[in-house]
Formats: sequence, C-alpha cells, structure tokens
Amino acid sequence: MTYFQPFQITPRDIAPGVQIRPMWGERIMVSIIEVAPGSEVPLHTHPHEQMGLILEGGVTMVIDGDLRVLNPGDVYLVPPDVEHGVFAGSERARIADIFSPPREDYM
Amino acid sequence: MTYFQPFQITPRDIAPGVQIRPMWGERIMVSIIEVAPGSEVPLHTHPHEQMGLILEGGVTMVIDGDLRVLNPGDVYLVPPDVEHGVFAGSERARIADIFSPPREDYM
Repeated sequence: MTYFQPFQITPRDIAPGVQIRPMWGERIMVSIIEVAPGSEVPLHTHPHEQMGLILEGGVTMVIDGDLRVLNPGDVYLVPPDVEHGVFAGSERARIADIFSPPREDYM
Repeated sequence: MTYFQPFQITPRDIAPGVQIRPMWGERIMVSIIEVAPGSEVPLHTHPHEQMGLILEGGVTMVIDGDLRVLNPGDVYLVPPDVEHGVFAGSERARIADIFSPPREDYM
C-alpha cells in the first residue's frame, strides 16, 4: 500500500472516547488518533519511540512528568519507555502519532 | 528535547521554493516541509523509509511511477530506495514528512 486515506480506515477504540486509525510501513507506523472532549490516554509506557503532531484541538500532554498545553502544529517526542499521557480539553483533538518500530499491539 | 514548535525552527532550503523544518529522535525524524506554488521535490531515492501526511494544499505525488493528487489528510508511504517526488499545484503545500532512520543529510 502506497497511498492511504485515513478516514476510510475503520477506527479502533483504545480507551473510552479515543479512536485510532493506524497505517504502517516496515519501520514507521502513523496513527491518526482522535480524542473526544474530556477523554484521555492515561499515563503509560512502551518500548517504541514516539513522535506526534497536533492536527486539531488543544490537548494537555505529560511526558516524563513535564506537562504542556499543546496546540495545532506543535510536535512532541516520547523516548522509549518514558511515561506519557494525553488529556483532551473541551474540544475534540486530532493528532498524528508516529511510532518506530510499529506497534504490533495495534496491528 | 521533548516539545517542539516547528515554526520556531529556522528553515532550510532543499530545492527552489522548498523549505524544511526537521525535528528528530533516535529512530524517527519528522520534517515539516513547505512547497511553494509551482515548486517541486524532483524524483529521487534514499535508503530511508518515508511516510507523509498532507497538512495543507494539494500536491501531486509520484511514488514508483504511481501518480496521485493528494489533499489534506491523505497519507503516503515510500519504501526504502523507491523513486518518488512531490509537485505543488497553484497553492502553497505543507506536509509532515516522516523518516526512519533519521536522514543524516538533514542534520
């Protein structure tokens, strides 16, 4: 697969109010994640490196205890095994999450 | 670095009318690329896997000879060593380009 239209992918719920649409290569996975108002991806860790780009809405991120309010266009980096979470505000948020290696638990 | 604001990064020109703002971890590089109207990233190859997400504007992508007009929200995958290029239309385009491993020539 060379070209993807994320909104033609059936979403998966990973937490209440949190849906992902994953796409992947061999080394990279891109997941469009939507977080409903007031929803969250609770603090967690994984061995995959992660970067992300806020596409819509504002979210509060916590990475290794460092809390920031992020807006569209902001980018974050989560090194392997570092605790992190995302907490939506009053608007629906949309984020492009990127993992390497791909998360086999999303396949 | 955990949090990035891409538009605080000094851009680099990689072709006439084409600017990148790269950010990276150990395995992932995210580069916000802006392509001025009528500009292009000519057909080329590299050994890095690449994915990308169209953020603004429409572009024509060619990947392994497969030409598509892409719009905001569309995603593409370029496997290692596969020829590809991007050609802007009449609007400025903005794309989140993702590489693994990071492109050492962008550091």
